[in-house]
Amino acid sequence: MPEESAPTTNLTKLRREPHRADPSWATIRQILTDSYLCHLAFSDAEGQPFAIPTLHALIGDDLYVHGSAASRTMRALGGGAKVCVTVTRTDGFVFARSVLNHSINYRSVMVFGHATVIDEPSEKEQALHAFFEEIFPGRWEEAREPTEKEYARATILRIPLEQASAKVGDGPPEDEDYDYDLDVWAGVISIKEVLGAPEPDPVLRDGIPIPESLTRIRERWS
Amino acid sequence: MPEESAPTTNLTKLRREPHRADPSWATIRQILTDSYLCHLAFSDAEGQPFAIPTLHALIGDDLYVHGSAASRTMRALGGGAKVCVTVTRTDGFVFARSVLNHSINYRSVMVFGHATVIDEPSEKEQALHAFFEEIFPGRWEEAREPTEKEYARATILRIPLEQASAKVGDGPPEDEDYDYDLDVWAGVISIKEVLGAPEPDPVLRDGIPIPESLTRIRERWS
Repeated sequence: MPEESAPTTNLTKLRREPHRADPSWATIRQILTDSYLCHLAFSDAEGQPFAIPTLHALIGDDLYVHGSAASRTMRALGGGAKVCVTVTRTDGFVFARSVLNHSINYRSVMVFGHATVIDEPSEKEQALHAFFEEIFPGRWEEAREPTEKEYARATILRIPLEQASAKVGDGPPEDEDYDYDLDVWAGVISIKEVLGAPEPDPVLRDGIPIPESLTRIRERWS
Repeated sequence: MPEESAPTTNLTKLRREPHRADPSWATIRQILTDSYLCHLAFSDAEGQPFAIPTLHALIGDDLYVHGSAASRTMRALGGGAKVCVTVTRTDGFVFARSVLNHSINYRSVMVFGHATVIDEPSEKEQALHAFFEEIFPGRWEEAREPTEKEYARATILRIPLEQASAKVGDGPPEDEDYDYDLDVWAGVISIKEVLGAPEPDPVLRDGIPIPESLTRIRERWS
Protein backbone atom coordinates (compact mmCIF):
# COMPACT_ATOMS: atom_id res chain seq x y z
CA MET A 1 0.00 0.00 0.00
CA PRO A 2 2.29 2.78 -1.18
CA GLU A 3 -0.56 5.30 -1.38
CA GLU A 4 -1.29 7.48 1.63
CA SER A 5 -5.02 7.42 1.08
CA ALA A 6 -7.51 4.72 0.26
CA PRO A 7 -8.92 5.02 -3.26
CA THR A 8 -12.22 6.85 -3.56
CA THR A 9 -14.52 4.40 -5.29
CA ASN A 10 -18.23 3.96 -5.62
CA LEU A 11 -18.09 1.96 -2.39
CA THR A 12 -15.83 4.10 -0.26
CA LYS A 13 -17.21 7.53 -1.16
CA LEU A 14 -19.23 9.01 1.69
CA ARG A 15 -22.56 10.39 0.51
CA ARG A 16 -23.76 11.76 3.80
CA GLU A 17 -21.64 14.16 5.85
CA PRO A 18 -18.71 13.93 3.41
CA HIS A 19 -16.74 16.36 5.61
CA ARG A 20 -16.44 13.54 8.14
CA ALA A 21 -14.71 11.25 5.67
CA ASP A 22 -11.05 10.51 6.29
CA PRO A 23 -9.55 8.34 3.58
CA SER A 24 -5.99 8.28 4.95
CA TRP A 25 -4.63 4.81 5.51
CA ALA A 26 -3.12 6.01 8.78
CA THR A 27 -6.58 6.81 10.18
CA ILE A 28 -8.13 3.65 8.77
CA ARG A 29 -5.36 1.49 10.25
CA GLN A 30 -5.51 3.25 13.60
CA ILE A 31 -9.24 2.68 14.01
CA LEU A 32 -8.92 -0.99 13.01
CA THR A 33 -6.02 -1.44 15.45
CA ASP A 34 -7.77 0.34 18.34
CA SER A 35 -10.71 -2.03 18.29
CA TYR A 36 -11.26 -5.75 18.67
CA LEU A 37 -14.97 -5.95 17.77
CA CYS A 38 -16.20 -5.81 14.19
CA HIS A 39 -19.38 -6.64 12.35
CA LEU A 40 -18.95 -8.88 9.31
CA ALA A 41 -21.69 -8.29 6.72
CA PHE A 42 -22.48 -10.71 3.90
CA SER A 43 -25.53 -12.03 2.12
CA ASP A 44 -26.57 -15.64 1.68
CA ALA A 45 -27.67 -17.21 -1.59
CA GLU A 46 -31.22 -15.89 -1.08
CA GLY A 47 -30.00 -12.32 -0.70
CA GLN A 48 -30.59 -12.22 3.05
CA PRO A 49 -27.97 -9.96 4.63
CA PHE A 50 -26.31 -10.73 7.95
CA ALA A 51 -24.15 -8.63 10.25
CA ILE A 52 -22.22 -10.98 12.52
CA PRO A 53 -20.32 -9.63 15.52
CA THR A 54 -16.86 -11.11 15.72
CA LEU A 55 -13.22 -10.30 16.43
CA HIS A 56 -10.74 -8.89 13.95
CA ALA A 57 -7.06 -8.02 13.82
CA LEU A 58 -5.11 -5.98 11.30
CA ILE A 59 -1.87 -7.76 10.45
CA GLY A 60 0.28 -6.12 7.83
CA ASP A 61 -1.98 -5.28 4.91
CA ASP A 62 -4.60 -7.90 5.71
CA LEU A 63 -7.60 -7.85 7.96
CA TYR A 64 -8.14 -11.16 9.73
CA VAL A 65 -11.61 -11.97 10.98
CA HIS A 66 -12.49 -14.76 13.35
CA GLY A 67 -14.96 -17.17 11.82
CA SER A 68 -17.54 -17.36 14.55
CA ALA A 69 -21.13 -18.20 13.62
CA ALA A 70 -19.20 -20.60 11.51
CA SER A 71 -21.33 -22.78 9.35
CA ARG A 72 -23.59 -20.18 7.78
CA THR A 73 -20.81 -17.66 7.36
CA MET A 74 -18.51 -20.22 5.88
CA ARG A 75 -21.13 -21.54 3.47
CA ALA A 76 -21.74 -18.04 2.16
CA LEU A 77 -18.10 -17.02 2.08
CA GLY A 78 -16.66 -20.24 0.74
CA GLY A 79 -18.18 -19.27 -2.58
CA GLY A 80 -16.21 -16.03 -2.62
CA ALA A 81 -19.05 -13.76 -1.52
CA LYS A 82 -18.46 -10.04 -1.10
CA VAL A 83 -18.17 -8.81 2.46
CA CYS A 84 -18.13 -5.57 4.36
CA VAL A 85 -16.36 -5.45 7.71
CA THR A 86 -17.34 -2.50 9.89
CA VAL A 87 -15.56 -1.36 13.05
CA THR A 88 -17.18 1.35 15.16
CA ARG A 89 -16.01 3.07 18.34
CA THR A 90 -18.36 5.51 20.04
CA ASP A 91 -16.69 8.42 21.81
CA GLY A 92 -19.46 10.69 23.03
CA PHE A 93 -23.07 11.83 23.18
CA VAL A 94 -23.33 15.22 21.46
CA PHE A 95 -25.88 17.71 22.74
CA ALA A 96 -26.71 20.38 20.18
CA ARG A 97 -28.87 23.47 20.61
CA SER A 98 -31.43 22.04 18.22
CA VAL A 99 -33.04 18.62 18.53
CA LEU A 100 -32.02 17.22 15.16
CA ASN A 101 -28.36 18.21 15.43
CA HIS A 102 -27.89 15.89 18.39
CA SER A 103 -25.59 13.04 17.51
CA ILE A 104 -22.94 10.59 18.61
CA ASN A 105 -19.22 11.13 18.23
CA TYR A 106 -17.70 8.03 16.75
CA ARG A 107 -14.93 6.63 14.61
CA SER A 108 -15.79 3.95 12.11
CA VAL A 109 -14.18 2.07 9.27
CA MET A 110 -15.79 -0.02 6.55
CA VAL A 111 -13.60 -2.49 4.69
CA PHE A 112 -14.93 -3.95 1.43
CA GLY A 113 -13.63 -7.00 -0.33
CA HIS A 114 -13.74 -10.73 -0.79
CA ALA A 115 -12.97 -12.93 2.18
CA THR A 116 -10.78 -15.99 1.89
CA VAL A 117 -11.10 -18.82 4.36
CA ILE A 118 -7.58 -19.80 5.35
CA ASP A 119 -7.45 -23.56 4.87
CA GLU A 120 -3.82 -24.55 4.44
CA PRO A 121 -2.77 -25.92 7.87
CA SER A 122 0.58 -24.17 8.38
CA GLU A 123 -0.79 -20.87 7.06
CA LYS A 124 -3.79 -21.23 9.36
CA GLU A 125 -1.59 -21.91 12.39
CA GLN A 126 0.46 -18.82 11.61
CA ALA A 127 -2.63 -16.70 11.04
CA LEU A 128 -4.29 -17.85 14.27
CA HIS A 129 -1.12 -17.15 16.22
CA ALA A 130 -0.73 -13.64 14.80
CA PHE A 131 -4.42 -12.93 15.29
CA PHE A 132 -4.36 -14.13 18.90
CA GLU A 133 -1.26 -12.05 19.66
CA GLU A 134 -3.04 -8.92 18.47
CA ILE A 135 -5.99 -9.45 20.81
CA PHE A 136 -4.27 -11.18 23.75
CA PRO A 137 -0.59 -10.12 23.46
CA GLY A 138 1.77 -12.35 25.41
CA ARG A 139 -0.91 -14.83 26.37
CA TRP A 140 -0.18 -17.60 23.86
CA GLU A 141 2.99 -18.62 25.71
CA GLU A 142 1.12 -18.99 29.01
CA ALA A 143 -1.84 -21.08 27.87
CA ARG A 144 -2.08 -24.59 26.51
CA GLU A 145 -1.25 -24.68 22.81
CA PRO A 146 -3.91 -25.81 20.35
CA THR A 147 -4.05 -29.44 19.31
CA GLU A 148 -4.29 -30.36 15.65
CA LYS A 149 -7.99 -31.03 16.13
CA GLU A 150 -8.54 -27.58 17.64
CA TYR A 151 -6.65 -25.94 14.80
CA ALA A 152 -8.81 -27.81 12.32
CA ARG A 153 -12.02 -26.67 14.03
CA ALA A 154 -10.98 -23.01 14.14
CA THR A 155 -11.85 -20.77 11.22
CA ILE A 156 -10.21 -17.57 10.22
CA LEU A 157 -10.84 -15.30 7.25
CA ARG A 158 -8.52 -12.94 5.46
CA ILE A 159 -9.61 -9.77 3.66
CA PRO A 160 -6.91 -7.70 1.97
CA LEU A 161 -7.02 -4.06 3.08
CA GLU A 162 -7.60 -2.52 -0.33
CA GLN A 163 -10.95 -0.75 -0.36
CA ALA A 164 -11.87 1.01 2.85
CA SER A 165 -13.30 4.23 4.21
CA ALA A 166 -13.20 5.91 7.60
CA LYS A 167 -15.66 8.32 9.14
CA VAL A 168 -14.77 10.36 12.18
CA GLY A 169 -17.15 12.56 14.12
CA ASP A 170 -15.60 14.35 17.05
CA GLY A 171 -15.60 17.64 18.89
CA PRO A 172 -18.50 19.83 20.01
CA PRO A 173 -21.93 19.93 18.34
CA GLU A 174 -22.32 21.47 14.90
CA ASP A 175 -25.27 23.81 15.21
CA GLU A 176 -26.92 26.07 12.67
CA ASP A 177 -25.40 29.57 12.67
CA TYR A 178 -28.64 31.12 13.94
CA ASP A 179 -28.86 28.69 16.86
CA TYR A 180 -25.67 29.76 18.65
CA ASP A 181 -27.52 32.64 20.35
CA LEU A 182 -30.07 30.34 21.96
CA ASP A 183 -30.24 29.87 25.70
CA VAL A 184 -29.72 26.12 25.30
CA TRP A 185 -26.87 24.16 26.88
CA ALA A 186 -24.67 22.41 24.33
CA GLY A 187 -21.73 20.09 24.77
CA VAL A 188 -20.54 16.53 24.94
CA ILE A 189 -20.64 13.63 27.37
CA SER A 190 -17.71 11.35 26.58
CA ILE A 191 -18.02 7.57 26.27
CA LYS A 192 -15.10 5.40 27.26
CA GLU A 193 -14.57 1.67 27.53
CA VAL A 194 -13.03 0.72 30.86
CA LEU A 195 -11.56 -2.63 31.85
CA GLY A 196 -12.03 -4.13 35.31
CA ALA A 197 -9.53 -5.94 37.50
CA PRO A 198 -8.83 -9.60 36.65
CA GLU A 199 -11.48 -11.88 38.20
CA PRO A 200 -10.23 -15.46 38.62
CA ASP A 201 -12.37 -18.35 37.44
CA PRO A 202 -14.25 -19.53 40.59
CA VAL A 203 -12.82 -23.01 40.04
CA LEU A 204 -9.24 -21.83 39.48
CA ARG A 205 -6.76 -24.02 41.35
CA ASP A 206 -5.17 -22.40 44.39
CA GLY A 207 -1.79 -20.74 44.15
CA ILE A 208 -1.87 -19.65 40.50
CA PRO A 209 -0.85 -15.99 40.34
CA ILE A 210 -2.19 -13.44 37.87
CA PRO A 211 0.10 -13.80 34.86
CA GLU A 212 2.24 -11.11 33.24
CA SER A 213 0.28 -10.98 30.01
CA LEU A 214 -2.75 -9.49 31.76
CA THR A 215 -0.96 -6.21 32.40
CA ARG A 216 -0.03 -5.96 28.76
CA ILE A 217 -3.49 -6.92 27.56
CA ARG A 218 -5.16 -4.39 29.85
CA GLU A 219 -2.81 -1.70 28.55
CA ARG A 220 -3.46 -2.78 24.97
CA TRP A 221 -7.20 -2.17 25.36
CA SER A 222 -7.19 0.80 27.76
CA MET B 1 -46.18 -10.50 20.42
CA PRO B 2 -48.11 -12.88 22.67
CA GLU B 3 -45.39 -15.53 22.49
CA GLU B 4 -42.67 -15.57 25.10
CA SER B 5 -39.99 -16.63 22.66
CA ALA B 6 -39.05 -15.56 19.17
CA PRO B 7 -39.81 -18.21 16.55
CA THR B 8 -36.93 -20.51 15.64
CA THR B 9 -36.56 -20.16 11.89
CA ASN B 10 -33.87 -20.80 9.37
CA LEU B 11 -32.63 -17.28 10.10
CA THR B 12 -32.78 -17.16 13.86
CA LYS B 13 -31.45 -20.64 14.61
CA LEU B 14 -27.92 -20.52 16.01
CA ARG B 15 -25.61 -22.99 14.31
CA ARG B 16 -22.55 -22.34 16.34
CA GLU B 17 -22.55 -22.47 20.12
CA PRO B 18 -26.32 -23.15 20.25
CA HIS B 19 -26.14 -23.31 24.06
CA ARG B 20 -25.57 -19.56 23.99
CA ALA B 21 -28.84 -18.89 22.17
CA ASP B 22 -31.58 -17.18 24.13
CA PRO B 23 -34.78 -16.82 22.13
CA SER B 24 -36.85 -15.18 24.89
CA TRP B 25 -38.38 -11.87 23.87
CA ALA B 26 -37.50 -10.51 27.32
CA THR B 27 -33.78 -11.04 26.66
CA ILE B 28 -33.99 -9.77 23.10
CA ARG B 29 -35.86 -6.63 24.18
CA GLN B 30 -33.47 -6.00 27.08
CA ILE B 31 -30.38 -6.13 24.88
CA LEU B 32 -31.96 -3.83 22.30
CA THR B 33 -33.02 -1.39 25.04
CA ASP B 34 -29.63 -1.41 26.79
CA SER B 35 -27.80 -0.22 23.68
CA TYR B 36 -27.96 2.75 21.36
CA LEU B 37 -25.53 1.57 18.66
CA CYS B 38 -26.51 -0.94 16.02
CA HIS B 39 -25.18 -2.09 12.67
CA LEU B 40 -27.70 -2.08 9.83
CA ALA B 41 -26.83 -4.67 7.17
CA PHE B 42 -28.28 -4.67 3.67
CA SER B 43 -27.12 -5.36 0.14
CA ASP B 44 -27.31 -3.06 -2.84
CA ALA B 45 -28.59 -4.04 -6.28
CA GLU B 46 -25.19 -5.51 -7.19
CA GLY B 47 -25.19 -7.77 -4.14
CA GLN B 48 -22.59 -5.73 -2.28
CA PRO B 49 -23.31 -5.98 1.45
CA PHE B 50 -22.96 -3.03 3.84
CA ALA B 51 -22.96 -2.83 7.62
CA ILE B 52 -23.74 0.77 8.58
CA PRO B 53 -23.28 1.92 12.17
CA THR B 54 -26.27 3.92 13.33
CA LEU B 55 -28.61 4.50 16.27
CA HIS B 56 -31.69 2.46 17.08
CA ALA B 57 -34.52 2.50 19.59
CA LEU B 58 -37.05 -0.19 20.46
CA ILE B 59 -40.50 1.37 20.72
CA GLY B 60 -43.34 -1.02 21.41
CA ASP B 61 -42.99 -3.89 18.97
CA ASP B 62 -41.00 -1.94 16.39
CA LEU B 63 -37.33 -1.28 16.04
CA TYR B 64 -36.61 2.23 14.76
CA VAL B 65 -33.31 2.87 13.07
CA HIS B 66 -31.87 6.26 12.26
CA GLY B 67 -31.30 6.68 8.54
CA SER B 68 -27.74 7.89 8.54
CA ALA B 69 -25.58 7.23 5.48
CA ALA B 70 -28.81 8.28 3.92
CA SER B 71 -28.77 8.17 0.19
CA ARG B 72 -27.27 4.75 -0.43
CA THR B 73 -29.17 3.12 2.40
CA MET B 74 -32.42 4.69 1.31
CA ARG B 75 -31.97 3.68 -2.33
CA ALA B 76 -31.43 0.09 -1.31
CA LEU B 77 -34.19 0.01 1.28
CA GLY B 78 -36.81 1.98 -0.61
CA GLY B 79 -37.22 -1.08 -2.79
CA GLY B 80 -38.10 -3.21 0.23
CA ALA B 81 -34.73 -4.86 0.63
CA LYS B 82 -34.17 -7.33 3.44
CA VAL B 83 -32.14 -6.08 6.39
CA CYS B 84 -30.41 -7.43 9.45
CA VAL B 85 -29.94 -5.15 12.43
CA THR B 86 -27.31 -6.32 14.89
CA VAL B 87 -26.72 -4.93 18.38
CA THR B 88 -23.66 -6.10 20.31
CA ARG B 89 -22.45 -5.27 23.81
CA THR B 90 -19.09 -6.63 24.93
CA ASP B 91 -18.82 -7.47 28.61
CA GLY B 92 -15.43 -9.07 29.12
CA PHE B 93 -12.23 -10.65 27.87
CA VAL B 94 -12.26 -14.33 28.77
CA PHE B 95 -8.97 -16.04 29.57
CA ALA B 96 -9.17 -19.80 29.23
CA ARG B 97 -6.57 -22.39 30.13
CA SER B 98 -6.14 -23.28 26.47
CA VAL B 99 -5.41 -20.81 23.71
CA LEU B 100 -8.39 -21.52 21.49
CA ASN B 101 -10.96 -21.35 24.29
CA HIS B 102 -10.18 -17.67 24.86
CA SER B 103 -13.13 -15.51 23.93
CA ILE B 104 -15.14 -12.39 24.58
CA ASN B 105 -18.22 -12.24 26.78
CA TYR B 106 -20.93 -10.41 24.93
CA ARG B 107 -24.65 -10.03 24.42
CA SER B 108 -25.93 -9.63 20.90
CA VAL B 109 -29.21 -9.54 19.04
CA MET B 110 -29.89 -9.92 15.34
CA VAL B 111 -33.22 -8.65 14.01
CA PHE B 112 -34.28 -9.77 10.53
CA GLY B 113 -36.97 -8.19 8.41
CA HIS B 114 -37.92 -5.61 5.86
CA ALA B 115 -37.35 -1.96 6.69
CA THR B 116 -39.92 0.69 5.92
CA VAL B 117 -38.87 4.29 5.45
CA ILE B 118 -41.36 6.40 7.40
CA ASP B 119 -42.54 9.04 4.96
CA GLU B 120 -45.90 10.33 6.12
CA PRO B 121 -45.10 13.67 7.86
CA SER B 122 -47.14 13.35 11.06
CA GLU B 123 -46.08 9.72 11.53
CA LYS B 124 -42.46 10.72 10.95
CA GLU B 125 -42.68 13.54 13.52
CA GLN B 126 -44.09 11.13 16.05
CA ALA B 127 -41.48 8.48 15.28
CA LEU B 128 -38.58 10.92 15.51
CA HIS B 129 -39.88 12.25 18.82
CA ALA B 130 -40.25 8.78 20.32
CA PHE B 131 -36.86 7.73 18.96
CA PHE B 132 -35.14 10.82 20.34
CA GLU B 133 -36.76 10.34 23.75
CA GLU B 134 -35.34 6.83 23.96
CA ILE B 135 -31.77 8.01 23.33
CA PHE B 136 -31.86 11.47 24.94
CA PRO B 137 -34.75 11.24 27.48
CA GLY B 138 -36.03 14.66 28.58
CA ARG B 139 -33.87 16.58 26.15
CA TRP B 140 -36.46 17.36 23.45
CA GLU B 141 -38.19 19.93 25.67
CA GLU B 142 -34.92 21.79 26.29
CA ALA B 143 -33.63 22.11 22.75
CA ARG B 144 -34.95 23.95 19.71
CA GLU B 145 -37.70 21.96 18.01
CA PRO B 146 -37.18 20.82 14.44
CA THR B 147 -38.42 22.97 11.58
CA GLU B 148 -40.48 21.42 8.79
CA LYS B 149 -37.39 21.44 6.60
CA GLU B 150 -35.37 19.58 9.22
CA TYR B 151 -38.13 17.00 9.63
CA ALA B 152 -38.17 16.52 5.88
CA ARG B 153 -34.41 15.95 5.77
CA ALA B 154 -34.40 13.43 8.60
CA THR B 155 -34.86 9.76 7.79
CA ILE B 156 -36.05 7.03 10.05
CA LEU B 157 -36.73 3.38 9.35
CA ARG B 158 -39.08 0.95 11.03
CA ILE B 159 -38.52 -2.79 11.30
CA PRO B 160 -41.19 -4.84 13.08
CA LEU B 161 -39.71 -7.00 15.83
CA GLU B 162 -40.85 -10.36 14.48
CA GLN B 163 -37.78 -12.45 13.65
CA ALA B 164 -34.88 -12.08 16.03
CA SER B 165 -32.29 -14.05 17.94
CA ALA B 166 -30.11 -13.30 20.93
CA LYS B 167 -26.78 -14.76 21.88
CA VAL B 168 -25.34 -14.33 25.33
CA GLY B 169 -21.87 -15.34 26.43
CA ASP B 170 -21.10 -14.67 30.05
CA GLY B 171 -19.37 -16.07 33.07
CA PRO B 172 -15.97 -17.74 33.40
CA PRO B 173 -14.14 -19.55 30.59
CA GLU B 174 -15.42 -22.88 29.31
CA ASP B 175 -12.39 -25.14 29.25
CA GLU B 176 -12.00 -28.76 28.22
CA ASP B 177 -12.47 -31.12 31.16
CA TYR B 178 -8.87 -32.26 31.02
CA ASP B 179 -7.55 -28.68 31.11
CA TYR B 180 -8.86 -27.76 34.56
CA ASP B 181 -5.84 -29.34 36.22
CA LEU B 182 -3.38 -27.16 34.35
CA ASP B 183 -1.24 -24.59 36.11
CA VAL B 184 -2.68 -21.82 33.93
CA TRP B 185 -4.50 -18.76 35.25
CA ALA B 186 -8.06 -18.48 33.99
CA GLY B 187 -10.65 -15.79 34.48
CA VAL B 188 -12.27 -12.67 33.11
CA ILE B 189 -11.43 -8.99 32.70
CA SER B 190 -14.70 -7.09 32.53
CA ILE B 191 -15.43 -4.43 29.91
CA LYS B 192 -17.69 -1.54 30.83
CA GLU B 193 -18.76 1.61 29.04
CA VAL B 194 -18.33 4.67 31.24
CA LEU B 195 -19.67 8.18 30.62
CA GLY B 196 -17.66 11.29 31.44
CA ALA B 197 -18.85 14.53 33.02
CA PRO B 198 -20.65 17.00 30.73
CA GLU B 199 -18.16 19.15 28.78
CA PRO B 200 -19.69 22.40 27.58
CA ASP B 201 -19.25 23.48 23.97
CA PRO B 202 -16.24 25.88 24.02
CA VAL B 203 -18.43 28.56 22.43
CA LEU B 204 -21.37 28.04 24.80
CA ARG B 205 -22.79 31.40 25.96
CA ASP B 206 -22.02 32.31 29.56
CA GLY B 207 -24.50 31.58 32.30
CA ILE B 208 -26.23 28.54 30.83
CA PRO B 209 -26.37 25.83 33.49
CA ILE B 210 -26.12 22.10 32.83
CA PRO B 211 -29.72 21.06 32.19
CA GLU B 212 -31.77 18.48 34.07
CA SER B 213 -31.97 16.02 31.20
CA LEU B 214 -28.26 15.29 31.39
CA THR B 215 -28.61 13.52 34.73
CA ARG B 216 -31.36 11.36 33.29
CA ILE B 217 -29.46 10.63 30.12
CA ARG B 218 -26.28 9.69 31.99
CA GLU B 219 -28.33 7.34 34.20
CA ARG B 220 -30.05 5.90 31.12
CA TRP B 221 -26.71 4.87 29.63
CA SER B 222 -24.74 4.00 32.79
